[in-house]
Amino acid sequence: MQTISLKLVTIVSESVLTEQLVEAIKRLGATGYTLTEATGEGSRGMRFGEHPGENVRIETLVGPDVADRILDLLTADFFPNYAVAAWVVDVQVVRGGKYR
Amino acid sequence: MQTISLKLVTIVSESVLTEQLVEAIKRLGATGYTLTEATGEGSRGMRFGEHPGENVRIETLVGPDVADRILDLLTADFFPNYAVAAWVVDVQVVRGGKYR
Amino acid sequence: MQTISLKLVTIVSESVLTEQLVEAIKRLGATGYTLTEATGEGSRGMRFGEHPGENVRIETLVGPDVADRILDLLTADFFPNYAVAAWVVDVQVVRGGKYR
Repeated sequence: MQTISLKLVTIVSESVLTEQLVEAIKRLGATGYTLTEATGEGSRGMRFGEHPGENVRIETLVGPDVADRILDLLTADFFPNYAVAAWVVDVQVVRGGKYR
Repeated sequence: MQTISLKLVTIVSESVLTEQLVEAIKRLGATGYTLTEATGEGSRGMRFGEHPGENVRIETLVGPDVADRILDLLTADFFPNYAVAAWVVDVQVVRGGKYR
Repeated sequence: MQTISLKLVTIVSESVLTEQLVEAIKRLGATGYTLTEATGEGSRGMRFGEHPGENVRIETLVGPDVADRILDLLTADFFPNYAVAAWVVDVQVVRGGKYR
């Protein structure tokens, strides 16, 4: 099976930011995303939320440039003001062209 | 801690395909899987679903051969017909023997 | 975008263990975690649960030492007695200092 390498960007934030974050990642070049309800506790001593659905877990498969742009935006506009966490993983996909 | 490397295959699809996909990955050699309700938007301009639970996120820890077989099957039978996305990540596990 | 490498540890277990596992990973050095409701089937022929929420998916971003300690604890205290699965992935994060 021939695969290509892409970036999976995962963002965890308060649910109220979902629409704002989805609009942002689409504007930066993401063509798809997956949302999952979550809860948790932040690494800054802030509670993320105690009930399922208070947080959202956003995943998007993108190329390295779009991943960088998403991290840049999070760093500039979200990390200073909100309980948002994000990480990037190298993944292999079959149909890379769909996620560029 | 001694670990071995395995593949984590994640599949996101419409929920109606859950049983069909789970049967398929088990037939191809997966011995365990995790299901999470999700929603999202596909990379082909198709909406995955707008309410939690309309999509499913399937994760399975497998060896590289089984991962290849799963990607082959998705490519042949699912990608042409359904809004299905899939990616593979290298992971480290302790008890590798359980996931072969 | 300047990133640093961390470990994303994912644990899937019966929901009844959530509090016990969260306390354990915090005691071992994790400063944040994300919880997602899940279901699934274990790799040891044990059913994890058939309804959403019967299982929990715990994610935590940690340094390599804390990741090792979590795997050690799971191996000693959880794997022998419970249907628990765990895997570790290398991830890139922007604000590494928060997750140490």
